[in-house]
Amino acid sequence: MKRNERVGALVKILCDSPNRIFTLSSFTELFDSAKSTISEDLLVVKQLMDQMGLGKVITLPGASGGVKYIPNTAKNEKIRFLEELCGRIGESGRAIPGGYLYLADLFNHPEYVSRIGAIFAERFIEEQIHYVMTVETRGIPIAMMTAFYLNVPLVIVRNENKPTEGPTLSINYISGSKGDLKTMYAPKRAVKPHSNVLIIDGFIRGGGTAKGLEDLVREFDSTVKGVGVLVEFQEPVQKLVRLYYPLVRLSEETATGSIKVTPNLDV
Amino acid sequence: MKRNERVGALVKILCDSPNRIFTLSSFTELFDSAKSTISEDLLVVKQLMDQMGLGKVITLPGASGGVKYIPNTAKNEKIRFLEELCGRIGESGRAIPGGYLYLADLFNHPEYVSRIGAIFAERFIEEQIHYVMTVETRGIPIAMMTAFYLNVPLVIVRNENKPTEGPTLSINYISGSKGDLKTMYAPKRAVKPHSNVLIIDGFIRGGGTAKGLEDLVREFDSTVKGVGVLVEFQEPVQKLVRLYYPLVRLSEETATGSIKVTPNLDV
Repeated sequence: MKRNERVGALVKILCDSPNRIFTLSSFTELFDSAKSTISEDLLVVKQLMDQMGLGKVITLPGASGGVKYIPNTAKNEKIRFLEELCGRIGESGRAIPGGYLYLADLFNHPEYVSRIGAIFAERFIEEQIHYVMTVETRGIPIAMMTAFYLNVPLVIVRNENKPTEGPTLSINYISGSKGDLKTMYAPKRAVKPHSNVLIIDGFIRGGGTAKGLEDLVREFDSTVKGVGVLVEFQEPVQKLVRLYYPLVRLSEETATGSIKVTPNLDV
Repeated sequence: MKRNERVGALVKILCDSPNRIFTLSSFTELFDSAKSTISEDLLVVKQLMDQMGLGKVITLPGASGGVKYIPNTAKNEKIRFLEELCGRIGESGRAIPGGYLYLADLFNHPEYVSRIGAIFAERFIEEQIHYVMTVETRGIPIAMMTAFYLNVPLVIVRNENKPTEGPTLSINYISGSKGDLKTMYAPKRAVKPHSNVLIIDGFIRGGGTAKGLEDLVREFDSTVKGVGVLVEFQEPVQKLVRLYYPLVRLSEETATGSIKVTPNLDV
């Protein structure tokens, strides 16, 4: 194969499995090429990804070393995307009785979901995440794409104790919107003790769900390394969790019923 | 930029958005290069993807034409992957009281989920799919990745009528395992009339859920173009749907309680 073919193939293989370490020797075997040749190919890959803002290719030294791809969106591109998303969320006709917004079209479209997942993954990639956790149902697609870019399993917490999950750990939590006490359940074997967990959810209002997920992670003898939410409702101002990372913020003018959606500029 | 850099960048851009058509002129602008140069670059991309079995790059002629990437796994590689999956599903220790299997670790791991999604997408890519539809909860990750590779929205059907979904269309269906009558709900605005829908689910046992989803698609004045399921239970032999595409088949020896999992060789 020629260099340009190897470069193309390396890009594909690395980007198909984000955050996964490939050894240099796996590539020398695959392409039947010398280490020095593959090293030069990888240098081309690194440079073109940097130059085009397409992500980062990182070399890890040592015996367990190798090379891996991680997404890396430029800050201005992230803000441009979030502004586009804010525009879509703020479109008229999304209001649903009860103060809800219809957002399933955005939450479930791969072009949005994959970019959202990449932004969450980029933020927490240094935290040695072992699992992404979410609670059913609406946050699952963005949590899945975050797990994809971090290359870790997704843990789906359930609102009911399902017989398909086997033994479960459960936690009671205050459902933010009405203050109801609810219970959620995760398979006992879904999280190994002493793991690092990233919580991802679609919305944060009072923070009761996020707080419940944090408590659940602790019941697994594990550590919450971050909470990522797509939409933060400004009200109530006092949330039950202190640290979380919203991508956009939504406030409602109670007088007119109109909403304002703004991007988090600290992305 | 040099050719090898452009080739790498083209691979990344095309594969980040599977099944999306990019015009040649979008690339000539991006790289500030002549059409003939980009055409030659794309030829290199096509050939290397073919040669390495990394997917297909297709050129579409005409005014609305351009170039797009679609996943395209070699048949023997698909079968190798499904055999690996069968081995994992058949591992001891997965049995749960009630005849269930604990499979969340496989269903939610990006490395499995993304390959499963690619295999479904490849099968139905010619069907002009407009939506992938699934019912909560366990099938959502594989349905999401299928939607990603087809570049169409995912429609998540709910088991309850949630206030966050707005007006819904509902359907009653026979829950296969016990024959119970249940109801499921999809947002009224989630599917435009006269659409082509691909149904994706984790399991098929009696086929009641798949049948319900088919009925629901028809209520949207739309057409079911396929039903993809990850695991087909051999029992009951008589299913409520006629045509579906399983990736693996599972049979239970009632005498010993042991299970047998085999790949669908027609992939």
